[in-house]
Amino acid sequence: MALDPTQQDLQSTISFILELEKLKGVLRKIKPLGQDRYENSAEHSWQVALLAISLAEYSNEPIETSSVIQLLLVHDIAEIDTGDTMVYDVVAGDNAESIAAAQRIFGLLPEAKAKYFLELWHEFEFGDTAEARFARAMDRAIPILQNLNNNGQSWQENGISLDMILHKNAKVAAGCKDLWVLLEQQLEAAVATGVVPKRKQ
Amino acid sequence: MALDPTQQDLQSTISFILELEKLKGVLRKIKPLGQDRYENSAEHSWQVALLAISLAEYSNEPIETSSVIQLLLVHDIAEIDTGDTMVYDVVAGDNAESIAAAQRIFGLLPEAKAKYFLELWHEFEFGDTAEARFARAMDRAIPILQNLNNNGQSWQENGISLDMILHKNAKVAAGCKDLWVLLEQQLEAAVATGVVPKRKQ
Repeated sequence: MALDPTQQDLQSTISFILELEKLKGVLRKIKPLGQDRYENSAEHSWQVALLAISLAEYSNEPIETSSVIQLLLVHDIAEIDTGDTMVYDVVAGDNAESIAAAQRIFGLLPEAKAKYFLELWHEFEFGDTAEARFARAMDRAIPILQNLNNNGQSWQENGISLDMILHKNAKVAAGCKDLWVLLEQQLEAAVATGVVPKRKQ
Repeated sequence: MALDPTQQDLQSTISFILELEKLKGVLRKIKPLGQDRYENSAEHSWQVALLAISLAEYSNEPIETSSVIQLLLVHDIAEIDTGDTMVYDVVAGDNAESIAAAQRIFGLLPEAKAKYFLELWHEFEFGDTAEARFARAMDRAIPILQNLNNNGQSWQENGISLDMILHKNAKVAAGCKDLWVLLEQQLEAAVATGVVPKRKQ
């Protein structure tokens, strides 16, 4: 039976949504508090969107919260093809694979929607907007918060030290200085209690 | 060391975000396609928000997409205390426990934000707005889409038949008629191929 244009669009959308199932299988380096398994990028994307709504008024610059949320909901979708990379392992300029992945996955959608999502994804990755800065700050902050409260699990397992955390996470301050001030205090305390070493050992 | 008001608010927000870790451990009845584990309510909330963005222009009524997204991001948070209930097992009027849970969990936030989130949660559960209708439609549609594409896994495991699906999921049509028309066709086809029985056996 032939589908009419509406049904074709709906069916394309369904293909996209079913493709998203795969992000539930992309594992990150951190375990949810109290659970003996690694979290996946889908549940992470949900949590970081809620952090952004919760802290929107602490953004350094005025932001449209609604845009920030959408940036965060799509920001990891290319990982369906590329897998998750810890921020400490990222190689600068290594973008071609991610861009191709985003084009493939969002390309499952009807054309206008594909373009809409691809622009969101691109803005999160490369954008020079207040919304992208705040979204990236939230994305960097979440694993610090998790590690500060699970005895530094992913830091310990991956040999991460305070100097690396401070160096790699300046993007938190670029979007949300108030949060960074608090995190810096808590990181110093975590060094004092042995949760994270001051320097790479 | 005493925290100033900003730091107190940030610390309350962090407590809320860490509490959300628990939703990653609330299991639903469906397995993500190709994975041999049940999905959790956190990753579900992410996926359904993306379905809503993808289908916003197919809403029966004009909606503010940004509100729909936020309704969906918070809609399952009370399950941290109550657990997930399959739509086929819901008892009408059984709300006191969910409301208390939402109050406890959002109550971890600074007061204004707690009120904001609690109102979103309440609107999704009980609201008579176009946004709530569309959000509920998306929430009902997702497990149908998953089951139609994983050989009816959660239908088979829980003795669900077409008549129950049609009876319990009229909310899809109430928010998004175009999608419901397509789902009805696909459900009929699923009966024909034996993925779901026509009546409870």
